[in-house]
Amino acid sequence: MGVKLGILGLGTVGTGTVQLLLDNLGRHPLLQEIEIYRVGVRSLSKPRTVELPEGVITTDLESIVTDPAIDIVVEVLGGLEPARSLILKAIRSGKHVVTANKAVIARYGDEIFTLAEQAGVCVMLEAAVGGGIPVIQPLKQSLSVNRIHTVIGIVNGTTNYILTKMQTEGSSFEDVLADAQKLGYAEADPTTDVDGLDAADKIAILASIASGCRVDLSDVYCEGIRQVSKTDITYAEKLGFVIKLLAIAKKITPSLSSPLSVRVHPTLVPKEHPLASIYGVNNAILVEGEPIGQVMFFGPGAGAGATASAVSSDILNIVAALKTEKAINEEILKQELENKPTSKIALHNQLLTARHQEDCQIAPITELVTQFYARFLTKDQPGVIGKLGTCFGTHGVSLELVVQTGFQGQLAEIVVVTHDVREGDFRKALTEISTLEAIDSIPSLLRVL
Amino acid sequence: MGVKLGILGLGTVGTGTVQLLLDNLGRHPLLQEIEIYRVGVRSLSKPRTVELPEGVITTDLESIVTDPAIDIVVEVLGGLEPARSLILKAIRSGKHVVTANKAVIARYGDEIFTLAEQAGVCVMLEAAVGGGIPVIQPLKQSLSVNRIHTVIGIVNGTTNYILTKMQTEGSSFEDVLADAQKLGYAEADPTTDVDGLDAADKIAILASIASGCRVDLSDVYCEGIRQVSKTDITYAEKLGFVIKLLAIAKKITPSLSSPLSVRVHPTLVPKEHPLASIYGVNNAILVEGEPIGQVMFFGPGAGAGATASAVSSDILNIVAALKTEKAINEEILKQELENKPTSKIALHNQLLTARHQEDCQIAPITELVTQFYARFLTKDQPGVIGKLGTCFGTHGVSLELVVQTGFQGQLAEIVVVTHDVREGDFRKALTEISTLEAIDSIPSLLRVL
Ligand SMILES: NC(=O)c1ccc[n+]([C@@H]2O[C@H](COP(=O)([O-])OP(=O)(O)OC[C@H]3O[C@@H](n4cnc5c(N)ncnc54)[C@H](OP(=O)(O)O)[C@@H]3O)[C@@H](O)[C@H]2O)c1
Ligand SMILES: NC(=O)c1ccc[n+]([C@@H]2O[C@H](COP(=O)([O-])OP(=O)(O)OC[C@H]3O[C@@H](n4cnc5c(N)ncnc54)[C@H](OP(=O)(O)O)[C@@H]3O)[C@@H](O)[C@H]2O)c1
Repeated sequence: MGVKLGILGLGTVGTGTVQLLLDNLGRHPLLQEIEIYRVGVRSLSKPRTVELPEGVITTDLESIVTDPAIDIVVEVLGGLEPARSLILKAIRSGKHVVTANKAVIARYGDEIFTLAEQAGVCVMLEAAVGGGIPVIQPLKQSLSVNRIHTVIGIVNGTTNYILTKMQTEGSSFEDVLADAQKLGYAEADPTTDVDGLDAADKIAILASIASGCRVDLSDVYCEGIRQVSKTDITYAEKLGFVIKLLAIAKKITPSLSSPLSVRVHPTLVPKEHPLASIYGVNNAILVEGEPIGQVMFFGPGAGAGATASAVSSDILNIVAALKTEKAINEEILKQELENKPTSKIALHNQLLTARHQEDCQIAPITELVTQFYARFLTKDQPGVIGKLGTCFGTHGVSLELVVQTGFQGQLAEIVVVTHDVREGDFRKALTEISTLEAIDSIPSLLRVL
Repeated sequence: MGVKLGILGLGTVGTGTVQLLLDNLGRHPLLQEIEIYRVGVRSLSKPRTVELPEGVITTDLESIVTDPAIDIVVEVLGGLEPARSLILKAIRSGKHVVTANKAVIARYGDEIFTLAEQAGVCVMLEAAVGGGIPVIQPLKQSLSVNRIHTVIGIVNGTTNYILTKMQTEGSSFEDVLADAQKLGYAEADPTTDVDGLDAADKIAILASIASGCRVDLSDVYCEGIRQVSKTDITYAEKLGFVIKLLAIAKKITPSLSSPLSVRVHPTLVPKEHPLASIYGVNNAILVEGEPIGQVMFFGPGAGAGATASAVSSDILNIVAALKTEKAINEEILKQELENKPTSKIALHNQLLTARHQEDCQIAPITELVTQFYARFLTKDQPGVIGKLGTCFGTHGVSLELVVQTGFQGQLAEIVVVTHDVREGDFRKALTEISTLEAIDSIPSLLRVL
């Protein structure tokens, strides 16, 4: 039948996708009906590792998204602009869209999905979260019969690689980061990864799809891993935990209308928890719901092959829907109608599109109820533990564990693990504690899963 | 619109499913369009934990599968008959079918899917493998753009529970089995689980869906866990392995037309492998393909809630397709046709149905190439290790490791781990070795992942 693709971008993901689609034997047979019709890039002179017929590659991206011959636009440019505008224009031109662009979806998802709904087209984004791991589609389909209350992901490979290396080799954040940069696991400017921004984009998307609400990047509370020291990793280990950068979306009460807490932060994960054993650049997404309980998806979070798999699976889903549509239109034409239908019948399966009909409230981080781990450097006065305890007690923070773990120079090091507390209460206690004469500093503050 | 279900069976899975469907707020909104129209059971007098309107429950199962009002038949009876015949009759009556019955699908899948294809209906079976874990649907959709060469599952909770307990508590197979029976994790007659038969059903199904071939239970080579002793678990641990009952479907060469090896056996799994950390009654399925690499799905392999989630997700998929179908038929009727279409247009998305177009060859177990672990009891003669080595050498079996691990009474215990060898060659060597005067017995023989 020939479904025509316009692909925007021929970098890591674009090239991987083109390779997969050109080499289609032994894959789903529907892929054989796809034609790579146009590919948009910035530079025509750059050498490419895939061979495409003369004239397919162009620098005129606008002409792709408006070309009447094209059925599906695949946006794998990255960045906010021109990606966002091209996606919107493609939708307005009646194209289905497949994108790997978490940054655009996390910021402009509302605008994009609203427009797509009006235009009757699908916007698919499996590659935006978890690389090759099928998680968006299972959340929209199989898992959507559950009341999902929790999604927890290790969704950034770079930070998981850094934390894993810090743990297994006892190295410092700075050293591992420098190594990761040399190995190509971290960018020259690592901010997006190490400050949690990439994970924040992804949890906004997962939260939206799991909850049926539109969760925006601005709803996500975000802390990165720069503050995690090897000292903390060692203490955590002794206490039975590993430290992971988790992206969490969780209803804060069991009620159906409970506010959602959506956040990214380094977290102490009990060693026996399934997420504790996810090492290196791998990603994993854990979903909890009623009545299913706990399921987890694990796999490569990035890379040309993994991402190409995700992008192509989105394309495949649309091709299958288009094929049905086409069969029906032909069937209708065969009926020798007097009034032939003038427009195609849109019949994109409701399970392909995300549902965004729910009204949701986002819980401010101060309302989070969690256990905390905090490390204090104190002047080694008698009674400093007593003072800490009193201060916490005043604010209703009860402690599970207080250990004087050793000395750093003149200063004594004290680690505290609380019971479940309201974050707001805990922060008030901390503010007061930080004014105590005996307290030198509070170098780390981590949440416990 | 009202999609009408006929549910066969109201046991663990049936009751879980009915509970989920009756309590549908906060789940996918399409579930609200479902009506539980008939439920078939054996005994009307049995107390039920779900309340259904008068007249819904019946013992006349035949009348359900032929009732023209019913759109979808959900078979959760278990057993081979009458389940198989009722499924076939439902298909002949034009009903879509959802089943959790791995035993029927592994044996009669060919008959059932062929008939379903002719009748233009879907047969869905997410609950048959991996309980609540979405794995069938991802294999049919997202992952099908890959060339999948390997599927490895821990798909039987009972045996994984037993092996986990043997490992963590150092108990014997018999003691743990007795405990598991008391706790309800193992049946009074544990054969189906401990002899690997349940896992064999499941890997036949996974192999079919992943490869696009029809793999039958009779194609599966199967060994259970009765031969696994605590001695082996201890040695395996020392060598860096845990023992798991794995269900494996794997192409034996990289070529597209490679024969498939499909098998269930206890296996030494390297501790750092993702499947090594799957403990207790949990299930996990690992899929490897090109270009995605390795992805793994983890979750509860059984239980009312998990299975209800899987069954309901299959129902949801069909409801979504039916809804599209209905919208189209209405659209067509609106066109004021002269010749109104007399039959419904079948438009079941090709991604819902499994593709079974490939021709496959099953590799006999003798052609498997793998590492082996074997434990020998020998008369403590000087030179016995030399004799073993010579015998293996003659048959082209090279050894990675030979350890005399200790004594059992008068007999010396020797553990051997081979390099990759053809299973046929290894077995010939073993046959010869077992005739050696110095060899008392070969109590265990395990493969290494
Ligand atoms: N890489 C991964 O592993 C991965 C994983 C998941 C998601 N993603 C997402 O996938 C998207 C693409 O990532 P990538 O790694 O493939 O990026 P990339 O390697 O930098 O490739 C970007 C491609 O887009 C083209 N391009 C960029 N801006 C353009 C413009 N203004 N006009 C025309 N062409 C333009 C570039 O053209 P030239 O080739 O001419 O320079 C290049 O072909 C991003 O949204 C990223 O977040 C990537
Ligand atoms: N249990 C799990 O966790 C699980 C997980 C995955 C898959 N499965 C599969 O799901 C299926 C059902 O399992 P289950 O655990 O729900 O079984 P179950 O608890 O034994 O329930 C079986 C139900 O079927 C009815 N039934 C059985 N034979 C019948 C007959 N000949 N005529 C009329 N009714 C009959 C029984 O009726 P009465 O109630 O009147 O006795 C009962 O309601 C099996 O194929 C199983 O392999 C189960």
